[in-house]
Amino acid sequence: MKYTLITGASAGIGKSTAFKFAKEGHNLILAARREELLNSIKNELISRYGIEAIVKSVDLSENSEVTNFYEEVKQYEIDVFINNAAFGDFNKVWDIDVEKAGKMIDLNVRALTTLSLLYVQDYKDKDATLINISSRAGYSIYQNVVTYCATKFYVSAFTEGIAQNLRDGGYRMRAKLLAPGQVHSEFVKSAVKDTDVEEFEWNDAHTSDEMAEYAYELYKSDQVVSKREQNGIKMMLQGPVFKYF
Amino acid sequence: MKYTLITGASAGIGKSTAFKFAKEGHNLILAARREELLNSIKNELISRYGIEAIVKSVDLSENSEVTNFYEEVKQYEIDVFINNAAFGDFNKVWDIDVEKAGKMIDLNVRALTTLSLLYVQDYKDKDATLINISSRAGYSIYQNVVTYCATKFYVSAFTEGIAQNLRDGGYRMRAKLLAPGQVHSEFVKSAVKDTDVEEFEWNDAHTSDEMAEYAYELYKSDQVVSKREQNGIKMMLQGPVFKYF
Repeated sequence: MKYTLITGASAGIGKSTAFKFAKEGHNLILAARREELLNSIKNELISRYGIEAIVKSVDLSENSEVTNFYEEVKQYEIDVFINNAAFGDFNKVWDIDVEKAGKMIDLNVRALTTLSLLYVQDYKDKDATLINISSRAGYSIYQNVVTYCATKFYVSAFTEGIAQNLRDGGYRMRAKLLAPGQVHSEFVKSAVKDTDVEEFEWNDAHTSDEMAEYAYELYKSDQVVSKREQNGIKMMLQGPVFKYF
Repeated sequence: MKYTLITGASAGIGKSTAFKFAKEGHNLILAARREELLNSIKNELISRYGIEAIVKSVDLSENSEVTNFYEEVKQYEIDVFINNAAFGDFNKVWDIDVEKAGKMIDLNVRALTTLSLLYVQDYKDKDATLINISSRAGYSIYQNVVTYCATKFYVSAFTEGIAQNLRDGGYRMRAKLLAPGQVHSEFVKSAVKDTDVEEFEWNDAHTSDEMAEYAYELYKSDQVVSKREQNGIKMMLQGPVFKYF
């Protein structure tokens, strides 16, 4: 029995991606903090698509929980591993909550790195796919989200590097990254101060269901990157963006 | 009394930069793990250049020590803050020690972020300079150092973002980053496995004393970035590299 594992599966792109992969017949391991939400998603997925689903409650921003989580899911055969859990922070650098920035690094960078490396080391010889969710903000800096962008630059470079290491080493496993622009989801509500939500640029935002379609398209394609174009709404399948030596 | 603070000051670029800034008349706060080494450097700097120097022993890869460290040095007027402490890891992704990768993120990314943000928030209205040490590997991916590159992509994007936030906000403080190529130092010895040291590409490596001259040149210049050119040995002063919106 093979499973697709998705972190941050309780909402937004993670939840929509769970529904898309279930619809395509994938069994799922759903990970997030909010166990009740995950259980209701699990029940809906099972009744709607007749797949198997497992729920794992975990706070991946706690370093100590990350390796334990991997040890728990290691017993399953995971043919797709999607690192989606992340949060943002909309502030100029002088207004950033320093402790929150640390938590963001722990989740967006450190947990993603630990899980990616453990997965690569276990699955490099198999037909397996690692998909890390980066952002268009992982290729260009947006002035109100500098620390978030920096975490996503990390994810972009790290994942492109893994993809090319695997290809050069002749391994069967593939690594890919999805780089959305703005998406309607709880992500924005938790990143933007209440007073700023109305002003947030909703023009041309994708829905999380649309983004899940792009995630699946990326999974099925031979490309490494699906990235939203700079001046438009299209997601473009492409090879790695950064120079690689 | 003004001080230049340097992390990772016990060896390599950090130590050489301490000597260069002392020679130019800067008082110093020297931070690193190895207190004895720092004390002998301090004594030599005082006797050679007649400056004031303070030693702070700290392990910045321990999250809990970072804010305490900043609280301790906050009593001094710090007009230059140089985040230099970092380490590397030369391995293909399937050979990386996952725990070491976590430590690298804690030091290269998390500690640098905490210290940069605290410094910006305290000094944005003053004639102060933040210099973060990135790498040429923070703009292009090198296949044997993927996680290290990703940490340096973070540093490059983060620091370019700070520099431009400060400029746009009309603040007096400046932020800059130095992006060396290979440098002869203990950094490489700790990053490369013993068996590989002989094979490491020493062609055209700078000395850490040369790099300290470039750090000082960057400090005195009006530019944001000093980055080693891709196919050559020159360090080029320039504006921010990544797109910024």
